[in-house]
This record gives sequence, C-alpha cells and structure tokens, in this order.
Amino acid sequence: MQGYSEIDHVMMARALRLAERGAWTTRPNPMVGCVLVRDGEVVGEGWHRRPGGAHAEVLAIEAAGDSARGATAYVSLEPCAHTGRTGPCADALIAAGVSRVVAAMRDPFPQVDGSGFDRLRAAGIEVAHGLMDAEAQALNRGYVSRLVRGRPWLRVKLAMSLDGHTALESGESKWISGEASRRDVMRWRARSGALLTGSGTVMADDPQLTVRLEDDAEVAPPLRVVLDPGLATIARGRVREGDAPTLYVHAANAKPPRDFGSERVSVPAVGNALDLAAVLRVLADRGINEVQVEAGATLAGAFMRAGLVDEVLLYIAPVLLGAQARPLFAGLQIQDMTQRMRMHVQESVSVGDDLRLRLVPLPAAVDADAGAAG
Amino acid sequence: MQGYSEIDHVMMARALRLAERGAWTTRPNPMVGCVLVRDGEVVGEGWHRRPGGAHAEVLAIEAAGDSARGATAYVSLEPCAHTGRTGPCADALIAAGVSRVVAAMRDPFPQVDGSGFDRLRAAGIEVAHGLMDAEAQALNRGYVSRLVRGRPWLRVKLAMSLDGHTALESGESKWISGEASRRDVMRWRARSGALLTGSGTVMADDPQLTVRLEDDAEVAPPLRVVLDPGLATIARGRVREGDAPTLYVHAANAKPPRDFGSERVSVPAVGNALDLAAVLRVLADRGINEVQVEAGATLAGAFMRAGLVDEVLLYIAPVLLGAQARPLFAGLQIQDMTQRMRMHVQESVSVGDDLRLRLVPLPAAVDADAGAAG
Repeated sequence: MQGYSEIDHVMMARALRLAERGAWTTRPNPMVGCVLVRDGEVVGEGWHRRPGGAHAEVLAIEAAGDSARGATAYVSLEPCAHTGRTGPCADALIAAGVSRVVAAMRDPFPQVDGSGFDRLRAAGIEVAHGLMDAEAQALNRGYVSRLVRGRPWLRVKLAMSLDGHTALESGESKWISGEASRRDVMRWRARSGALLTGSGTVMADDPQLTVRLEDDAEVAPPLRVVLDPGLATIARGRVREGDAPTLYVHAANAKPPRDFGSERVSVPAVGNALDLAAVLRVLADRGINEVQVEAGATLAGAFMRAGLVDEVLLYIAPVLLGAQARPLFAGLQIQDMTQRMRMHVQESVSVGDDLRLRLVPLPAAVDADAGAAG
Repeated sequence: MQGYSEIDHVMMARALRLAERGAWTTRPNPMVGCVLVRDGEVVGEGWHRRPGGAHAEVLAIEAAGDSARGATAYVSLEPCAHTGRTGPCADALIAAGVSRVVAAMRDPFPQVDGSGFDRLRAAGIEVAHGLMDAEAQALNRGYVSRLVRGRPWLRVKLAMSLDGHTALESGESKWISGEASRRDVMRWRARSGALLTGSGTVMADDPQLTVRLEDDAEVAPPLRVVLDPGLATIARGRVREGDAPTLYVHAANAKPPRDFGSERVSVPAVGNALDLAAVLRVLADRGINEVQVEAGATLAGAFMRAGLVDEVLLYIAPVLLGAQARPLFAGLQIQDMTQRMRMHVQESVSVGDDLRLRLVPLPAAVDADAGAAG
C-alpha cells in the first residue's frame, strides 16, 4: 500500500459519501462517487445515479471543465475500461487530462477487474488504489457479493419482542415494532434489489413488500420475490399489487395456471423445501445485489441453517409476548451449547421505543474460555 | 421549588456521587453523601459507609473543622433528627455552625420525614430541599421502596440468547452470556440486599449466589433467599456454602427437619405457589432494600404476572439457541396483542460481546396508533 496523505483520506471519504447517494437507484450497478481535486481544492464531483445514466467520473469532469487538467481524481471504485451503456470512464479521465487517479477498490466486474487501472497507467497517469478499500467494499457489499460469490448479499429483517417472539401463537404479528421502526425498515427496503418472502407470510400477513417513504426520494422498486414451492398463493394478495415486479419461485412439479400474470421460475426442491442456494443464484443472474428477507421463522431459520445469511437486521420491541408465541428462527435443532449459533453485534441503536441490532453470523466454534455462571 | 444556582447543582451532583460509594455497604441504611462549601469552595465532604458508622454529615464536618462555620451543607438526603446508632445529624450541623442546608430529598424514614428540616429551621438555618430530587430518589430506590411501599425494589436478572431463550431444552444454561457480563452481574449483586432464587434453579444450576469480585472492594454479603415451598432442596447445594446467610422461604405445610441449619420462614401459599407479595413483605421487614431475582422462567414469569417487577436487567448474548430452548418468562398467557406486556428501555449498553438492557415494565395499555407492517 502506498502512503496516502490526509487530503487523500478526506477526499476519498467524500467520494464514498457521494457514492452512497446512489444506494436506492444505481442497481444493478455499483454505487460510485468521484471527486476531482486540483491544488488541494475540489474542482468537480459526481456520483452515479442510475443505470444508463452518466458515470460519476464523467459528471465530475463535466463539473470541473478545464480545471480537470492536472487534477487528482478520487473514485470509490476502479474506473471502467469497457463500453457499456456509456463509454469507458478511464478514457474520459485520460481525455480530461487528470494526472493522478486514486481508487478505493478494484472493480471485480470481469470486464474491468484491473484493466481500468492498466489503461490509465498506459496513458501515463499515476494510479493508486486501496485507500479506504474496506469502506468501499462494505458500501458495495451487494455488488461485490454478486460478482465474487455469485449470490446476492442476504439480509434477514426480523422484528421481535423482548422475549424473542415474532408473533403470537395465533400468528398475529402486527404492532410488534413501533412506527419509527417501520419507517426505518422502508429505508432498508429502498436499498435492496429484491425483497423476499415465503408463501406462509403471504398467507398470514399479506404484505405488499413495496417501498413507502414519506418524502419523494427516488427509489428503483425492488423486485418482490415469493418462495412458493407449490404456487399455492398466486391468487392472493397485495404482493402482486403496485408498480414493482413480482417473481414467484416454485418447485418444478408445481402446476402454474396458463394466465399466470407474473414472472415465475422453478428451482430444485427437496420435498416442499426449495434449494435456497439455487434461489440466490437465480437472483444474482438477474443482477440483484442485495436481498432483504422478510418472512417468518421457518424461512428465516432455513436461510440461517443453510449458512446463507450475511446480516440480520433485528428490531427488538420492548414488549413481552409470552412463551407460547412464535419463535424467531424455526428448526435450528440445537442440542447442546457447542452447537449454538453465534453472532457479532455490529451495531445497536435506538429507533423510537425499539432497539435495532445489526448482527453478523459467526462461524461455529467451540470456545474453551467459557465458565459457569452462578 | 426554590431557585438553585449552578454551584448548587454542581455540589449536589458531587454529594450524590459520594453517596453512591456506599452502594455495596450501607444497607439497610440509605446511601448519603455530604459536601460542605464555603465561599464557593469545598471545605469538607463525607459519605456514609456502613450501618453503625459515621454519617456523611458528621464526616464532612470533621473534615471541614472550623471552616464548617457559615458553610452550606449539600446532602443527598434529609439530615436525621433522631438518635439511632449515632446522634442526630441535624444537631451536628447546628453545632458546627453551618448557615444553609440544601437536601436533595426528604427522608421517608418515619422518625425523620421532615423533622430534620424542622429542627434545622428552628435553629435559624436556611433550609432548601428538592434539588436533584429525582436523582436522589433513583439512587436510593430500594430504601425508598421499602419505606414507602413496604416492599423492596425488585430487579430480575436474566441472560438470554438473541432468540429469547435462557437455556436449552435440556436445561443447559451455562455459557449463554460472556465473561464480561458475568463480571457485571457481580457488581449488581453487590448492591443487592438479597439475591433470590427458586428451588428449580437450585436443582438445575446449583448457584452459589455470592458476590465474587476481582478486586478487594468491601461488600456487605447479600442475604441468599431460596423460595422452596416444600423445602425440597435443603440438602443441596452451594447456596448454603460461603459466608453469606441463607433464608429458605417455604409453605406452612412443609416439614422442616429438626436440625435445619439455616434460617427459614413460611408464607401463605396457593398450591405449590408461594404468595410473592408476602415474600417481599418478609424481606422488607428484614431491612432488605433491593432484591435481585436470579431464577428461571417460572419464577421470573410469576413475579412479572404479579406486577412486582421494578426493573429487568437483561443480558443478551448474540447467539441463537433454537426454538425448542427454554423461554425467558413462563406462563404469561398472552392471547392477543392488547395483552402484551410493554417495557421501557431505560438503558442499552455493550458489555463485552453481549448487550445489557435495563427495562422498566410499563402499565398495560391499548394504543390506538398501531398500524400494520408489510
């Protein structure tokens, strides 16, 4: 890693913040921000808003005009070297006469993947990358996951009572979390490429699974995905209402009606359980970077058991529902403490009267330090 | 309420902090701190360490010497007017020649209860009280509860997994919370006048229920209280080991052996369930200010149902134990959402890898604002 100056850090942090403005609209593209700096001053900046729209670098160059000549370009992601819906950003930076490019991370996209840097260097531009790499990787964790692992980043959203229940025995689950938490969930939906649920939740709760924000912020409507092995719920519900597309994922032996009316795809199934890894491959192939699962204990538990959960977004409402209520995750089959599933608390914040935790599952491990309480 | 100056607030805050130093040792007495200030400078301070020892005011007067004359005394609690194991503090303040006394709260102790203020005023001393009253009431919440409500302040300590379980189905409960949480629990034990458990926990976990701290801090050993209706566990366990006294509470029809070896008391019982309010009256009569319940879901749920829980100290370990594991509270019998038990999150902090919440049960209420998720 090269040495970076304080101004390098400040400008890259600025580029990352700009990039994040595209969180609700750039998909399937990555979020990218660019800041052009000459003589210690920002002369232009830009961020990628939506697919087919101008790239961050091009917007920054336009804003800088002649001041781009001799400037340093800070970009949160390697400039592209290929012609997609827009021309290569590497060429635009070369043509603008920038003298140095600092990128936070390499772009894992196969048609870029270092060739952007190569093209810049071949044109005599000084290139550095790796500054705030971890932050950039975290920002585009969905995009990176899709390209590197071949599956989207998977977030499981759950709301539970203090005693760990998501619903009463009757199935009643409304009003567990508060108004502020429900608004917060909408912002997490907005950054998801897909919102995934199961047929059980469609039957019990009939969610619409759309993004409903109080202001007029632009959001690319997330794909609604219903896992419905036997296509039992296709006649039902609000999940087919509204502007967002809906995709049903079913088992091969399901019998779809002729006039189905929504997209559908089949994946391998064992009994009534769809192959969840196959579901995620289907979604990755469709350019989905981040999936938010909003389902009941059965599906949440199945994703957890399959080791496919990247993060859990857990709203804890300070209420008690009692021991007969429904569990958070079903079917975990934990017989002794060494089998317990451990998580890391990444964040814990208050949202209205509730708490919101962000948790990352940890690999199973037997720890020797544990001692008895009491 | 009189107007108080900034220096009044600063000095009272100091008196409260001093008072809190006695949290592990003053019981059954209240914690009291005193700061003597003349011409804006602290000339003496003191805090009550243990029953029979000098009171805060007397220590502050001793420290101030002649400087006490004309000083203002800031005390976290009304100075006593009666002769207990030590002489009345009101008289000591009068003799020392202080010109003004500022108290945070009136002492609800029947032999004081305003008469300390009266005696000071009769001697020509300016008296004000109510400054930081809420903080002072919170500090001595156990003492106040015992005198005003006739029962101790009741804290239920629980450790649970993220999915709301306190133990596996097998009963295995060790290692749920981490080392840092277990150390933290010891500090909460240290400020408790009694540690209360049930016969089920004695059978399953065999806790010692003593205070084990890493440093040499002085702690008055909390009384260990075992609710054991039929005296089934008297032959067992570590709860009778160590220096702290142990009190068994049983039903009237239990048959205690002749050489029982520990204190015991009977309370009314319905079937196998002891009258928990009666248990708390017994403890209040013994001068217990704060009780910490460390028991399983059955007893924790019973105290909750009886409306006797003042605060829940909840350690949440970021692990999943699965839906078959044991619940946090048993027997809550909640059929619909209007019956849910609501709590207020007073505090949420990280303790090692765990979270620690302090929760206050709220009165049941049907709220109209609740809307549907989804």
